[in-house]
Amino acid sequence: MLDNYTCDTLYTADYIITQNDSRDIIEHGALAIAGNQILSVGHADILTILYPDARRVDLGRAAIMPGLINSHTHIPMSLLRGFSDDKALMDWLTQDIFPQEAKLTPELVELGSLFSLAEMIRSGTTAFYDMYMLERSVFRAADRLGMRAVIGESITQYFPSLSCRDAEAYFDLVRAQAFEWMNHPRIRQAVVPHAPYTTTPELLQQCYALAEETGSFFGMHLAETRNETETCLSRFGKRPVDYCASLGLLSPISTFFHLVDVNEDDIAQLADTGSCAVHNPASNMKLASGVAPVEAMLNRGVRVGLGTDGPASNNAQNMIREMYLASLLQKAHRLSPTACPAQTALDMATRGGAAALHDPYLGTLEPGMRADFIALDLNAPNMQPVHHIVSNIVYAATGAENRLTVVDGKELYRDGRFLTCDYDALLSEIQQARIWAQK
Amino acid sequence: MLDNYTCDTLYTADYIITQNDSRDIIEHGALAIAGNQILSVGHADILTILYPDARRVDLGRAAIMPGLINSHTHIPMSLLRGFSDDKALMDWLTQDIFPQEAKLTPELVELGSLFSLAEMIRSGTTAFYDMYMLERSVFRAADRLGMRAVIGESITQYFPSLSCRDAEAYFDLVRAQAFEWMNHPRIRQAVVPHAPYTTTPELLQQCYALAEETGSFFGMHLAETRNETETCLSRFGKRPVDYCASLGLLSPISTFFHLVDVNEDDIAQLADTGSCAVHNPASNMKLASGVAPVEAMLNRGVRVGLGTDGPASNNAQNMIREMYLASLLQKAHRLSPTACPAQTALDMATRGGAAALHDPYLGTLEPGMRADFIALDLNAPNMQPVHHIVSNIVYAATGAENRLTVVDGKELYRDGRFLTCDYDALLSEIQQARIWAQK
Repeated sequence: MLDNYTCDTLYTADYIITQNDSRDIIEHGALAIAGNQILSVGHADILTILYPDARRVDLGRAAIMPGLINSHTHIPMSLLRGFSDDKALMDWLTQDIFPQEAKLTPELVELGSLFSLAEMIRSGTTAFYDMYMLERSVFRAADRLGMRAVIGESITQYFPSLSCRDAEAYFDLVRAQAFEWMNHPRIRQAVVPHAPYTTTPELLQQCYALAEETGSFFGMHLAETRNETETCLSRFGKRPVDYCASLGLLSPISTFFHLVDVNEDDIAQLADTGSCAVHNPASNMKLASGVAPVEAMLNRGVRVGLGTDGPASNNAQNMIREMYLASLLQKAHRLSPTACPAQTALDMATRGGAAALHDPYLGTLEPGMRADFIALDLNAPNMQPVHHIVSNIVYAATGAENRLTVVDGKELYRDGRFLTCDYDALLSEIQQARIWAQK
Repeated sequence: MLDNYTCDTLYTADYIITQNDSRDIIEHGALAIAGNQILSVGHADILTILYPDARRVDLGRAAIMPGLINSHTHIPMSLLRGFSDDKALMDWLTQDIFPQEAKLTPELVELGSLFSLAEMIRSGTTAFYDMYMLERSVFRAADRLGMRAVIGESITQYFPSLSCRDAEAYFDLVRAQAFEWMNHPRIRQAVVPHAPYTTTPELLQQCYALAEETGSFFGMHLAETRNETETCLSRFGKRPVDYCASLGLLSPISTFFHLVDVNEDDIAQLADTGSCAVHNPASNMKLASGVAPVEAMLNRGVRVGLGTDGPASNNAQNMIREMYLASLLQKAHRLSPTACPAQTALDMATRGGAAALHDPYLGTLEPGMRADFIALDLNAPNMQPVHHIVSNIVYAATGAENRLTVVDGKELYRDGRFLTCDYDALLSEIQQARIWAQK
């Protein structure tokens, strides 16, 4: 994969967390970058000699690690952060969220997206899997700010939507976007029907066929609540995962979000088909959806990523916090302090995310992998002392420690400065959201 | 209470969260400080005219709020942050924590305390209730850095401890410290036996009598796990709260930490005696202790504070994160998205903390109250837009947004600078902890 053997930049720091198969952590380490790829990872002393002409960025008391991958979110919803909380799901949706969403415009969706991207870049996320409405604006935002993404326009059986008058228009949109974003170095498309209870079997099969036809991925909310299972059983005579299996939707191009109410058979089907799962602990806790059997999935061989879900139900886009919650939720729910250790949470946010986004060149810092990485400052009082760096990252960090975000070899954020957007202008524009919401 | 009607400093900001009885939030507000007290709270336009000669600190896009109160912690344990995680409680204690603690010295306890104080001051905590060993060093650290605290040397039936050769020596220590810290403007003492399962009934009664004799408060870990209840039943024939009631320990000077395994009768006894409770969601989740019935306690009239527990089992001292967890844990556990709304979590961290620390002049921003407050920066991408400021604080903030910490009218932290300690020196010293732990 390496087509450039010259090291452009050599990043050095007290710790390099490789997340490779043996989970090596290199003290006084260095990461050599060539273009948009990792050329080499090793001890600072050695790599400094190997690449004497490279630009040097010494991060000092910091931990360089793979960029975090937010495997399920709805980034435009930063517009509605904190707009409505602490309500039963259906009240929340019908009284507060849906009426606001009906007033969305492409411009607002782009603003909300840019703002969420700033939040993600700031807190150490380098890639995300998004589904929402008017996603053309999300593609544009991700392209403009330099993020890596899988992006999908969501579809239900109810038309017209904000984006399309009918299903045919939707299929045309997906085909046009496939053409438009083909060969983009960082952005891929997904076909993402909303959920089993808002679609028909025919529509789901058409969507899956469309994903195959356009070389896109396939994603869907699935088995988010007990209630969804009951609806699925009464309407289709099958549990949600079974239902998807019967429609031929389980495959390595498929990623299913939430998977809270899944049993052993469901898990076996997901594993055996190479389907990916995404765990969303904050959203599941806040909306009281239940607790996904994360370790049962991992033990059976399902590849599990981690996601924040949208900022209206999280209410942040902070993968550091999400790792912490993933670990604590399993421990509390299973009454076992050994459940979901720090390393498992970190694996989901990196290696698991690479699987969920179907990108084999993400999730670890190894030669030949994409140059997507971050660096956490270890000078903050919550990050010291360092007995075990992974513990401090998962259990003590806030996300605000991140001081460097690099995607595809390009620095997007460093030491308080956003390098691909005018954050002050965005901050000023986002004030519109309050006026818009009160209309 | 006001003995000074001259406003020394007028702090202005986009929001003042008063936490008064009607939970008023003042937009474009001001807080007028006179010495160590709040003189006035109101609109910036008006207070600026009223106090033309005051020093002005305009915080702009920020939210001024009462300082957060960490009602249960063991601050010296920052030394062991991340030293051991993901283990069963008894393995964790006997294999990893106890052997380290046996090597503690007063100097190390002071270092760990100072470092935790820096973390708390940085993340918006202005007061704490501590119990550990060698607490003489904690008193000194809190005094030196300007924090408000209730501090107690913990005692078990097993002697000698690191601090005392026998119970008599302990009682003498408490009496000496009562004399030493009498009339301190910010620091009070508590007598804090460790737990029912590490003490005798006689020792508990002696401790309570000692608290009354020395004008100290009384605190203890209580009903932390189902297992503790079983031990208590088999050893004393009573559930933990009942057992304490039978010994006369329930009273308004008493604060009990954890209270996870409590039933309706227990809650009624706590409420009817004016005893205070402290909820520790992170620690209870991480150690898989169970889930405290927080809202049942609040509804029955128990005053409930919020605490992080020690940094070895949290692993941070971040009350913003603790509020978030308090809310999410109740929602997830009770499968109700309406459980423990943001305002309830904020109330526990402020007004509830004032009760747990037995200080009627803490927890709200009102005239006559102590000038203990913080200011969160709202320019960070996770803090915008602001539809409901309390939602953003509880559900979206990380703690790193705090830019001002004032205790007793004195600024301890502002905009990246610690004003009462040499943080860089502390950061350098805390590196010792790693060497100490590996000995």
